[in-house]
Amino acid sequence: MKNQTNLVRVGLLGLGTVGTGVARILINKGAAIRRDTGLEFRLAGVCVRNPKKKRDISLKGVRISSRPAELVREKSIDQIVELIGGVEPAGALIASALRGGKDVVSANKALFAERGLPLYRLARQTGRHIGIEAAVCGGIPVIQGIQSGLASNRISRIVGILNGTCNYILSEMSRHAKPYPMALREAQAAGFAESDPTLDVNGTDTAHKLAILARLAFKSEIPYARIFREGIERVTSEDIRYAAELGYSVKLLAIGQREGNGALELRVHPALLEKRHLLANVSGVNNAVLVSGDETGDIMFYGRGAGQRPTASAVVSDMIAIAQARRHNVNNLDPIFSTAGVRPIQEIRSRYYLRFQVLDRPGVFGTLAQILGRHGISLSSVVQKETNRSPVSVIVLTHRTEESRVQKALTAIAAQSVVKEKPVRLRIVDPETP
Amino acid sequence: MKNQTNLVRVGLLGLGTVGTGVARILINKGAAIRRDTGLEFRLAGVCVRNPKKKRDISLKGVRISSRPAELVREKSIDQIVELIGGVEPAGALIASALRGGKDVVSANKALFAERGLPLYRLARQTGRHIGIEAAVCGGIPVIQGIQSGLASNRISRIVGILNGTCNYILSEMSRHAKPYPMALREAQAAGFAESDPTLDVNGTDTAHKLAILARLAFKSEIPYARIFREGIERVTSEDIRYAAELGYSVKLLAIGQREGNGALELRVHPALLEKRHLLANVSGVNNAVLVSGDETGDIMFYGRGAGQRPTASAVVSDMIAIAQARRHNVNNLDPIFSTAGVRPIQEIRSRYYLRFQVLDRPGVFGTLAQILGRHGISLSSVVQKETNRSPVSVIVLTHRTEESRVQKALTAIAAQSVVKEKPVRLRIVDPETP
Repeated sequence: MKNQTNLVRVGLLGLGTVGTGVARILINKGAAIRRDTGLEFRLAGVCVRNPKKKRDISLKGVRISSRPAELVREKSIDQIVELIGGVEPAGALIASALRGGKDVVSANKALFAERGLPLYRLARQTGRHIGIEAAVCGGIPVIQGIQSGLASNRISRIVGILNGTCNYILSEMSRHAKPYPMALREAQAAGFAESDPTLDVNGTDTAHKLAILARLAFKSEIPYARIFREGIERVTSEDIRYAAELGYSVKLLAIGQREGNGALELRVHPALLEKRHLLANVSGVNNAVLVSGDETGDIMFYGRGAGQRPTASAVVSDMIAIAQARRHNVNNLDPIFSTAGVRPIQEIRSRYYLRFQVLDRPGVFGTLAQILGRHGISLSSVVQKETNRSPVSVIVLTHRTEESRVQKALTAIAAQSVVKEKPVRLRIVDPETP
Repeated sequence: MKNQTNLVRVGLLGLGTVGTGVARILINKGAAIRRDTGLEFRLAGVCVRNPKKKRDISLKGVRISSRPAELVREKSIDQIVELIGGVEPAGALIASALRGGKDVVSANKALFAERGLPLYRLARQTGRHIGIEAAVCGGIPVIQGIQSGLASNRISRIVGILNGTCNYILSEMSRHAKPYPMALREAQAAGFAESDPTLDVNGTDTAHKLAILARLAFKSEIPYARIFREGIERVTSEDIRYAAELGYSVKLLAIGQREGNGALELRVHPALLEKRHLLANVSGVNNAVLVSGDETGDIMFYGRGAGQRPTASAVVSDMIAIAQARRHNVNNLDPIFSTAGVRPIQEIRSRYYLRFQVLDRPGVFGTLAQILGRHGISLSSVVQKETNRSPVSVIVLTHRTEESRVQKALTAIAAQSVVKEKPVRLRIVDPETP
């Protein structure tokens, strides 16, 4: 019989939204977790910036300090749960915890995206575990799915909606034809966007999450800085409407793709998705990730991508899994064997949605078509929106072509005197070939 | 450094579709699995009905026999992978393996749905592990998601499309207005339905999978025989079309729901789903499961629910996870603490789609409405399909009401002389309240 209870002493760094959620689960659900898993988690210490601040949870009997460096060196602690965020001092604290023989659970996207590899290496050297399920997609167990559920698969592609703020804004722009600034203000009022939303709307947060997922899916170190990044700030409700008329939704996508030669394509940008695509129907603050394995085919994970309770749930599921793995002789949490070559965005191939604002004069479309043709870009459909104003909108969907051709063609077209605005370029992601 | 390779000796029972897929992964991907996990799986013995039969994989050096009882007693074997299916002798073989100190991986739905509890108990007594990810939804890691990814959640509901054959048939009926027998024949021709499809189309397979998921989600033993079961054999393309006009898709759903008092609602039946519901967009042979956790909210797992490679992938992911857990002191694979009370189908509450074939005479609708009203059933919409024939179709959508009221009202309505066919009754599943 293997029913004894194992005690796990936890040091918690940070008592913000997620930290409070974790403490709450450990307090309110301690008995259920003990019954289900045989593990008893005890909060041995909590580290906060201001220990005197009033909290809306009771931490009676828990040592509260403002000295994280001491807590991570505390001999009696088994797990450090890092929820302070930011690259430093979080990185140094985690390294110190690993060196001291502690397992680490973290929700720190920026740190693990930008400087994950040395921490994984250190964990391997010290035989410790790192759990970062909470760093990507809140309570959705997508990291576990990639690392364990699809363990025997060679993963060729991940496509995800990884940022709830952007998805909420785009959903609102789409449903109510709201302009971007209005949708952003409303998202802020509803608590779905920060007062400074820059890192969400410019794609940085999504790129961090893509780096973390791609590292684990492709078992390659990801040069974070080389992930192509384009945000949603310049997406207009007009383009969303035109896309809808053509049968597409606009989403901010993270795309990671492995080519036959091992090179990776890694990009974050707004994209048109056919409405029948599963990801096209993921709306509001929800997240979803489509993972393509050679054995399983496409597997999708879907759910709330953020928020106190879902994210805290992911932290606690890592704490449980790691405590159960404590006696493993095998460490599969450092599956990184190479640094991948990354294909420059100019070399990707995609279909494109292009919009031109042109004077409504005879021969204008001929000029556009000629320039596109000269760059080897063939068109799958053309729509001129009827208006009684000039300039008019001409919308072109292309067949698959190389991004560099499109860039050159757009530069040539923008220089035409009949073209009145910078052309709009959005990539189209097909279900089979993103 | 924890990099040594652990040898895992495997006894494989059955070399049908899934067994061949597992052998193929172990042979073709042995090196990748060793690199990623530090585990070396060695096929120590394979048991088949006819050892002389030609196979399309090479098992050179592997002992092939037709005596499963010997293989499961073989001292040197660490894991038994049971892929022969059926309740017996599979159950006795697994019990023997567990008693002999072996871990077990199985894809056996019927066995674990109908007689899972004693096997889990035996595994707990002997300190062994049982992995049955492959029994539900092929390569989709939903069992792992429920057991580990959502470990700190109290799960209140699971709603799933668990049978690819039924989903394929309903999708074809819906897209091409095909009658059921034609869609079934085509599914058989395409290899998506067995020559005897009974256990798929009558809901038995779905109920088996629901029993397995519900046991793990609700941590209660499920009295399999008490799961309400209604198949897709009587769904007509006419009703699918009417449902579509009203904004609904028809799916065969498995629904498991825990009430505040701990009683369970467990049912398998065709249901109308609003088209904006995520599950409504799961088409063809795909499966999906929506799991509602108190911390995470709704999480969905989606993918191919069957087939050699996805199912074999799930088997191998269990083999890896269990081999890694071999030294655990904690066994969380027997989380069953009680036997649940099951709410009889007559007591469930739902919205309903009802169709009546009635003579086109004055006062007929009044008669229907009166009988429904007398049974306390209020209507949310009524459509009479225009035709120049009599009888005509009258379609009624109800508000939420108790199933027993609907049953009584339909009996009373069926007895009316103006009613020409047995009324059609389909349950409607709302996103929030199935």
